[in-house]
Amino acid sequence: MNVDLVIRNAIVVACDGKNTVIKDGGVAVQGGRITQVAASADLAAAIQSAKTVVDGAGHILMPGLVNAHCHAADSLFRGLVEDLPLEPWLQKVWTAEGAILNPQTSYLGSVLGCAELLLSGVTSVMDMFWYPGETVRAARKLGMRVATGGIFFDGPGVTGGDLDSRIKAAEDFFAAFGGADDVFAATMPHGAYTVGPENLKAARAIADRHGGLFSTHAAETKAEQDDIQGRYGRSVIRHLDHLDLLDERATLAHCVHLDDEEIDILARTGATVSHNPMSNLKLASGIARIPDMLSAGVNVALGTDGAISGNDLDMWLALRMAATLHKGATQRADAVSTIEALAMVTTTGARALGASDRLGSLETGKLADMILVDVRRPHAVPLFDPVTHLVYSTAKSDVRHVFVGGEHVVRDGQLTRHSIDETLDEVARLAPRIAATIA
Amino acid sequence: MNVDLVIRNAIVVACDGKNTVIKDGGVAVQGGRITQVAASADLAAAIQSAKTVVDGAGHILMPGLVNAHCHAADSLFRGLVEDLPLEPWLQKVWTAEGAILNPQTSYLGSVLGCAELLLSGVTSVMDMFWYPGETVRAARKLGMRVATGGIFFDGPGVTGGDLDSRIKAAEDFFAAFGGADDVFAATMPHGAYTVGPENLKAARAIADRHGGLFSTHAAETKAEQDDIQGRYGRSVIRHLDHLDLLDERATLAHCVHLDDEEIDILARTGATVSHNPMSNLKLASGIARIPDMLSAGVNVALGTDGAISGNDLDMWLALRMAATLHKGATQRADAVSTIEALAMVTTTGARALGASDRLGSLETGKLADMILVDVRRPHAVPLFDPVTHLVYSTAKSDVRHVFVGGEHVVRDGQLTRHSIDETLDEVARLAPRIAATIA
Repeated sequence: MNVDLVIRNAIVVACDGKNTVIKDGGVAVQGGRITQVAASADLAAAIQSAKTVVDGAGHILMPGLVNAHCHAADSLFRGLVEDLPLEPWLQKVWTAEGAILNPQTSYLGSVLGCAELLLSGVTSVMDMFWYPGETVRAARKLGMRVATGGIFFDGPGVTGGDLDSRIKAAEDFFAAFGGADDVFAATMPHGAYTVGPENLKAARAIADRHGGLFSTHAAETKAEQDDIQGRYGRSVIRHLDHLDLLDERATLAHCVHLDDEEIDILARTGATVSHNPMSNLKLASGIARIPDMLSAGVNVALGTDGAISGNDLDMWLALRMAATLHKGATQRADAVSTIEALAMVTTTGARALGASDRLGSLETGKLADMILVDVRRPHAVPLFDPVTHLVYSTAKSDVRHVFVGGEHVVRDGQLTRHSIDETLDEVARLAPRIAATIA
Repeated sequence: MNVDLVIRNAIVVACDGKNTVIKDGGVAVQGGRITQVAASADLAAAIQSAKTVVDGAGHILMPGLVNAHCHAADSLFRGLVEDLPLEPWLQKVWTAEGAILNPQTSYLGSVLGCAELLLSGVTSVMDMFWYPGETVRAARKLGMRVATGGIFFDGPGVTGGDLDSRIKAAEDFFAAFGGADDVFAATMPHGAYTVGPENLKAARAIADRHGGLFSTHAAETKAEQDDIQGRYGRSVIRHLDHLDLLDERATLAHCVHLDDEEIDILARTGATVSHNPMSNLKLASGIARIPDMLSAGVNVALGTDGAISGNDLDMWLALRMAATLHKGATQRADAVSTIEALAMVTTTGARALGASDRLGSLETGKLADMILVDVRRPHAVPLFDPVTHLVYSTAKSDVRHVFVGGEHVVRDGQLTRHSIDETLDEVARLAPRIAATIA
């Protein structure tokens, strides 16, 4: 046996669909994949040949989180536009983005956003943004996985250009990254209210041709539903279904305003809903019908949305809100269970990436994307149930170690591949220019 | 001039009702009180005679937070009973509390809870629990302020005893702590559904006699409203008002289920509502009508409730939820402003303690209860507006330094008066016994 890494002495929460918890256990890793998930005592042989042994005592070991909707580079605009509903808010956001964004600033913002994500234990993110190649460059710089790809937007947007140039950019993205194991290549039309039917179909066709993913915003606000109903005589989800855009490789962000039949369409097609509770609350979009979606069998994953709306990229907060908000909103204490909530950020997120076979749980043969969560903290003691603790009281600052494909990319709460201070300084220097765009 | 402490080079958010923000400033402190709030350049004279100078560069300096509803010692039971609505949940909680709590374990739990609070920047907490003298002892051990006092409960509760013994304990509490500047002595009947009218009035009379505070749970669930309506022919707030219990020294925790007239009663009497959004969501109690209360002029403060419901004592999360939850629930982006939300944890909290003259803001003459919040973090950059940042993206782990009455009680994220590891170990040793109570 030849082992690269063993983590031992941890509380293992495997997220394997069988509620496996090992009170004192760990994993062995070889060639970026998990070769053993076991009690610490049973890892003795692996330890003998291991290049590196990490002591997980006082920590929960679990899969890295999947953030199923983000705009990492929008962290450049965090807190710039506050306390407006989505539509007028978007107008200001687009003004600022248009003035600031180019490949260099998109890279800078993506490093900022990806750093926050990775430090908090997100090992894969589905990210929609201009210059998606820069997002990949940023994610690779830090050592995380990203699902992204060509944006479709009928107006000029940030980059300008027409449908032909959008199609070319989307094809170029697949050519560059289609086979990579750290990129889940996609096409990403912005939404049904900003992309017409033919262009939505063009985006989907490219994804289909390459076996890629497809993601768009959908039914985020009541106003959007009214707009689409007025234009096409169908609600948003019916419109997308009518255009044949929905299947298991499609992820729809938000889905706040759905009727029962739209929920049934999502369940039937196997599309994933990326629920973004903090963004939906802050932008006054509403509260998505997550318990109804779960009852209907819809795949519900979780996202942070961008820090421009959020105002951060805290997946632990998204997780906690997914488990609590709907209990309060429905006055039903069983509205979303802890197991259902934890699945959203692990297995269902992995399914949204088309990567259920290799991500989302700690199981032999899967990629070694894993995190260690410190539970020797005042808010973690006593610890009766590690699953409950992960859902209801874990904070992002509890994540001390992050591994992607077995590589130790966050050690003791610090990025190992990049000095974040450089990035923070560079963003701070850019901030006055950003503020001036909407002054 | 004779100065004990100067903090300089910080971003000062004074919370003084005039939206004072000093981009590069600080405070001088003498004898536990603030003697100057000024730009860093204007602190030069104070620095010359200062015993201690703290560099606040890269931090926001603001008042310590007030948590207006907590059960700190209930942290012993964190995560023990999950995913039940309030009433059946309470039955299990009471079983566990009855089996475990005594003065020693209440002290242990209070140290655990107060440590979490103080480390996150809470410098004053309104805490309701059995053995309130032990809560005071714990708060004093760590160096924080606490509002607490004799519990009233018509059943035997944890301590047993009848009305006479409750009255005696409440009087004894005032005798022991009534004049202290770190204790806001109160009487604390549990709620209208567990304490009859005469006993509620007895509790209020003791508080009145000593000029103390009065706090109780009120209108937490729909079931409670139905219960009180059935018993007394009046809704909860009408019942409390009818008994003449409400004025500016009364704080009512939760108030989730109110009609318009009840909101008007709260506004008219000047009672404070302590809003506990995370507890209300997780226990499926509902979503309080906070925007309507603010419009009506009700004093709204914020609390965490106990970690047994929460599952932690994170006032930053309570703050963020107070500012976002109601936007989402009402679909109005102006439902609660950032200024209104920040006031809940500072000035309105201080008012609930009857301490507006000495707490809640950074102003000359006030007690030097202050915190330094690190803003050199990936989720804090760029920083366009420190108020927005405090409300929407500050995490409890950003609090690096805490001062109470000018004393440095948290330094670099560590308690200065107590080693928390001892407490965590002791709680961990007790945990199996706690788990066994409801097994």
